[in-house]
Amino acid sequence: MPLSLKDRLDASAAAAEARLDAALAGAALPGERVRPERLMAAMRHGALGGGKRLRPFLVMESAALFGIPADGAVTVAAAVECIHCYSLVHDDLPAMDNDDLRRGRPTVHRAYDEATAILAGDGLLTLAFDLLAGDDAHPDPVVRVALVRALARAAGIGGMVGGQMLDLAAEGRFSGGAALALDAPAIRDLQAMKTGALLALSAEAGALLGRAGAAERAALQAYGRALGAAFQIADDILDVEGTAEEVGKKVGKDAAAGKATLVSLLGLDAARALLDGLVAEATTALGPFGARGAILAEAARFVAARRS
Amino acid sequence: MPLSLKDRLDASAAAAEARLDAALAGAALPGERVRPERLMAAMRHGALGGGKRLRPFLVMESAALFGIPADGAVTVAAAVECIHCYSLVHDDLPAMDNDDLRRGRPTVHRAYDEATAILAGDGLLTLAFDLLAGDDAHPDPVVRVALVRALARAAGIGGMVGGQMLDLAAEGRFSGGAALALDAPAIRDLQAMKTGALLALSAEAGALLGRAGAAERAALQAYGRALGAAFQIADDILDVEGTAEEVGKKVGKDAAAGKATLVSLLGLDAARALLDGLVAEATTALGPFGARGAILAEAARFVAARRS
Repeated sequence: MPLSLKDRLDASAAAAEARLDAALAGAALPGERVRPERLMAAMRHGALGGGKRLRPFLVMESAALFGIPADGAVTVAAAVECIHCYSLVHDDLPAMDNDDLRRGRPTVHRAYDEATAILAGDGLLTLAFDLLAGDDAHPDPVVRVALVRALARAAGIGGMVGGQMLDLAAEGRFSGGAALALDAPAIRDLQAMKTGALLALSAEAGALLGRAGAAERAALQAYGRALGAAFQIADDILDVEGTAEEVGKKVGKDAAAGKATLVSLLGLDAARALLDGLVAEATTALGPFGARGAILAEAARFVAARRS
Repeated sequence: MPLSLKDRLDASAAAAEARLDAALAGAALPGERVRPERLMAAMRHGALGGGKRLRPFLVMESAALFGIPADGAVTVAAAVECIHCYSLVHDDLPAMDNDDLRRGRPTVHRAYDEATAILAGDGLLTLAFDLLAGDDAHPDPVVRVALVRALARAAGIGGMVGGQMLDLAAEGRFSGGAALALDAPAIRDLQAMKTGALLALSAEAGALLGRAGAAERAALQAYGRALGAAFQIADDILDVEGTAEEVGKKVGKDAAAGKATLVSLLGLDAARALLDGLVAEATTALGPFGARGAILAEAARFVAARRS
């Protein structure tokens, strides 16, 4: 009997957590002089003990489509989660979104200090590539180097870093303070970069691990892109409708910042319709995998319906 | 007739600059939606138009020992320089060293703003691994993935990031404000991580590019480590003796922060003697390369004697 979505989410979360825990152990590696205690504690605060671990789930479930067992995907899952966690640590900084609360706990710069948070983020970003380069990521260096390239692109200028930059610009941070009046395509570009790129990479990573053909790789990318867009709209809806207690971070931030989202632009009903359309797009993209794609399809529905 | 050290430094600097310039071009790559203009400008400010480019020189000259032409080493040289430049951008931030001036120009957060500087640093760090993953870094993926691993280790917890953390701790940032009374071995650990690891990696990178044997790789690492230690002592001496005009950044910072350096601990004369010893160590390590190592040996002497 196949496990439920919740069981699988829990299993991949636990596996990724254990891999991150091992990577962030306090003892110096061979060749290292010291692992500074405060840095390790801050990195662990930023990376362990919370979060849905959606990206590790996507890596591990997409890899499973190609027969890759959990052990064979968990290091890549942990690497992708390192990137996600570093981005949260840096985005929460006072100079960025200035958040005090994350996953119901103090953000890293509140629990430690700004300098430590900057370095913890830098350390997690660097660790992601360290993890991908090791032979436990995949036995074939060709696959490992493809993962490095794909992750760097998803995380960099044309992906997450660029998306956060567009997001700050949209708030009017570099143009006198008034939020920019972005239209829907501009918002979708921004969100595809800020959130979508890493989610799409997570699904694509399974195809890379499984040495999938071009069609299957493209199918998983399309799934991941649609899921990423759905994720962001669900997030924007939660920012309007959720409570801080449910969501585990401050809500109402977009409205407070006068920031255009697809929800503020189209209204809640149209945003929900768009969300439904994206879920359909995600599940359709899984067509080539037949019944084996069921758990990823269920994940897309879960992402759209989540309350936290 | 062989080119002089200055000619070779200029040639590798120009080649690395051109490679970085191309990597930081404004036009979106295939698959990218947008390259945000302000982000690109800040990254270019942080990475182009200045600096000694010592790390690219070390990559390219150590690669040349194995017959690798400039073209075959310049992408790796640019990747290493990306890491160096990102570290300067982040270290200069108000929450870190709070510097206004770098290479005689405003630091990135002064020329733009803090959020942009954080993202520009993140972007450069990510770009380094993107560059290493491309087949212009080296035709063999085995070599590329070894470079990714080595660079991540030099830049991460046990290297540069950890070293900056130790440096902030040494200033008393996390212990009530008074600088810690580090002893010489602790200072050498700190400096080996903060500055030495990336310089050692730069020399080692040539061995990786040239698929050198273990002995040659170890020789270049030893050279790089000694050069890195010499570089840092020379820096500490300049911080005492140089002028901001010569050095291109604020001087007297260590004394102002009450920070222990090998200069403050041992005195100028003993620090100079240690510097001479490290230069000898660096040149001795080059023994296996015979006359071909002359330019790297000259570079070690140059680093020790530099005034900026």
